[in-house]
Amino acid sequence: MTYLTIESFEQALQGLQEPDVAAIEAARARQAQLTKPPGSLGRLEDIAVFLAGWQRRERPTLERGQAIIFAGNHGVVAQGVSAFPADVTAQMVANFDAGGAAINALSHAAGLELKVIALDLDRPTADFTEAPAMTETDCLAALSAGAVAVDADADLIVLGEMGIGNSTAAAALCARSFGGSGTDWVGPGTGVNGDGLARKANVIDRAIAYHASAPSTAFETLRRVGGREIAAIAGAVVEARRRRIPVILDGFICCSAVASLAAATPHIIAHCLAGHCSAEPGHRRLLDRLGLEQLLQLGMRLGEGSGAAVAVGVIKAAVVTHNRMATFAEAGVSDA
Amino acid sequence: MTYLTIESFEQALQGLQEPDVAAIEAARARQAQLTKPPGSLGRLEDIAVFLAGWQRRERPTLERGQAIIFAGNHGVVAQGVSAFPADVTAQMVANFDAGGAAINALSHAAGLELKVIALDLDRPTADFTEAPAMTETDCLAALSAGAVAVDADADLIVLGEMGIGNSTAAAALCARSFGGSGTDWVGPGTGVNGDGLARKANVIDRAIAYHASAPSTAFETLRRVGGREIAAIAGAVVEARRRRIPVILDGFICCSAVASLAAATPHIIAHCLAGHCSAEPGHRRLLDRLGLEQLLQLGMRLGEGSGAAVAVGVIKAAVVTHNRMATFAEAGVSDA
Repeated sequence: MTYLTIESFEQALQGLQEPDVAAIEAARARQAQLTKPPGSLGRLEDIAVFLAGWQRRERPTLERGQAIIFAGNHGVVAQGVSAFPADVTAQMVANFDAGGAAINALSHAAGLELKVIALDLDRPTADFTEAPAMTETDCLAALSAGAVAVDADADLIVLGEMGIGNSTAAAALCARSFGGSGTDWVGPGTGVNGDGLARKANVIDRAIAYHASAPSTAFETLRRVGGREIAAIAGAVVEARRRRIPVILDGFICCSAVASLAAATPHIIAHCLAGHCSAEPGHRRLLDRLGLEQLLQLGMRLGEGSGAAVAVGVIKAAVVTHNRMATFAEAGVSDA
Repeated sequence: MTYLTIESFEQALQGLQEPDVAAIEAARARQAQLTKPPGSLGRLEDIAVFLAGWQRRERPTLERGQAIIFAGNHGVVAQGVSAFPADVTAQMVANFDAGGAAINALSHAAGLELKVIALDLDRPTADFTEAPAMTETDCLAALSAGAVAVDADADLIVLGEMGIGNSTAAAALCARSFGGSGTDWVGPGTGVNGDGLARKANVIDRAIAYHASAPSTAFETLRRVGGREIAAIAGAVVEARRRRIPVILDGFICCSAVASLAAATPHIIAHCLAGHCSAEPGHRRLLDRLGLEQLLQLGMRLGEGSGAAVAVGVIKAAVVTHNRMATFAEAGVSDA
C-alpha cells in the first residue's frame, strides 16, 4: 500500500498481523518426530517454526525469496562523514544493474530475485545537522516506495541498502530512538577512522541537538535524521508484516530503519530475523536494543543486504531439514 | 593411501603440504580490486584467499564438494553413557542410505556429494575403561578407510560422524590430548543429563587413568580412547592435506578426531575450517585449543556433518563474491 498521510502510516503500525498459532504447533510437533535428538538442530528448528507461523503452513517454503536493495543520497555528506565520494551511490546502483556487486553474486547463489530501487539519487536529503533530512511528503513517498516494492507472493524478503553517508544517518536514528551520544553509535562505515570518526560523532551530536525539541514519533525521527533508502526499508518491513512475509534484516543501517518504529512498538519486528551482526560497532548495541540475535557473525560490513543474503543459506538449511527429513516412524529409528 | 604400519601413518604427519603462496597473493590482490570497501566482506574474504591457497588457483571453485560421514559402534556404551541404544547407529546409517537424515537434506541443499561409510558396526570397539578401544590393526584399518574415502578431485570436503556413545570417546580424546578431567570435556551428547552426565565424566576419568602409562603419541591416543569413525576422520584429514583439499570440520566429535594429531603437530589442521561451534560444551574449549574460529554458531549438536554442511553456504558465498564481483575498474566505480 502507499501512504498519503502521516496518519495512514501510523495506522499501519496498529493492529499488526500475528503468526498462525496452529501452524506453529504443527511445525513444532513435526520437529519432535524427525530423526534427531530433540533440539539438536538448534536455531534451525526455531527458524523452521518461525517461518511456519508467518507463512501459515506446517511446512514453510523458500521458493520465492526476494532481495530488495534501496539506494539514496545524503546531504550530510557535506560534513565530510564518508570515506567515499557521494557519486559512488549512483555508480554502485549501476554496478547492481550490471550484475557486478556482492549482492548480485550472493542473490544468485541464494536463489533470490533481486530488485534494486534507486530513490531520487539526484536529489539528496537535506543536511540533517541544519534541517530535517526530508519533507513529510518526501518521507511518505520513500515509505511508500518501500511498501510497494514488496511482492505479494514472496515467501521471504531480504532487505538492504546503499547510500554514501548513510551510516551517519543510521547512528543518528539509533541515538534519537534509543538514547546515547554520537560516540555510542558511530563507527567507521565504509572506512572512516581517527579524526574522521570524531567528526562523524560530532555531526551526530549536533543533529540530535538540532532536532531535540521536535516530536519523538517514529515517523518524525525517520523524517528528520533518516534517509530515503532507510525510510523505504521501514516501509517494506511494515508492508511485509501486513502480508505476513518473514524478513531478513541486514546490517547496522538496515536495522536502524526499524529503530524508531521498534522503540515505540517493539513487536513490530516480530516477523524479522537479523541476518548477521556487522563489524560496524553500533550494530551489536542495536541488535540488543531490538531484541534480535544474529544468525551469522562473519565480520562483514558491506551493506547491500549482503549479510542477510548469506544468512539465507541458514534459512534454506532450516527449511530443507524441516521438510525433507524422515520421522522416527518413517525411518524405523528407535526414539530416545 | 592406506596405512599398513604405524610408521607409515606417522610418516604421513611429516613433510606436510602447504598452500600455494602465489595463489594466495593473487587472490588477495583480486579482493582488493572488487567493488566494496577493503575488508568489508570480513571472513568471506579470508575464506576465498584460504581456498585459493589450498586449491592453488586465484579463483577457487566449489563444484565438487564431498560430504563423508563415517559411522562406528562403541563398547563404552556398556557403561550407560548414551541416551539412545547402540542399535541406533545402524538404524541411522540405514536412514542416511534411504535419504531421510538431516545430512541428506543439507548435502542436497549445499550441492555436496554424500558418501556414508559404516565401519564394522557389528564389531564395536572395546570398552576403553578396561582395554584399548582398538587393536593396532583395527586402528590402521580405520585410518585407511578414512583416507581412501577422499576423492582425489574433490574441491572441498565436509567430514562428519555417527556413533552412539562417541561423545564419550571424543571427551576422552580431548582429555588425553590436551589435559583436563572428565568434567572439563563431558557434555550431554544426544541428551544425557544429571546423574548420567556425572557417570559419563567418571567413565572418562577412569579411561584416562587406565591408559595413563601408555605412550602419548597421536596414534596411540586415537587407538586407545577413540573409535573407528573418529580414526577414519583423522585419516581423511591427513589424506585431504596430502591432496591439498580444504576441509570443513563439524562438531565436537569430528574435531576430537584431530585432537591428538594437533596436540603433537598444530599445523596439521592448517587446511581445515571449523564449520560451526556446537552446543556441546566441550566444543568451544576444543576449538580454542585447536586455534579454530567457527563459521557458524547456531546451537546445533547433531553431528552427521550437519553443522559443517550448513557452513558450506558461507563457503559458497565466499567463492561467488570472489569470482563473480566486478572490479572498481570494470564497474567504473570510484575507489576510496
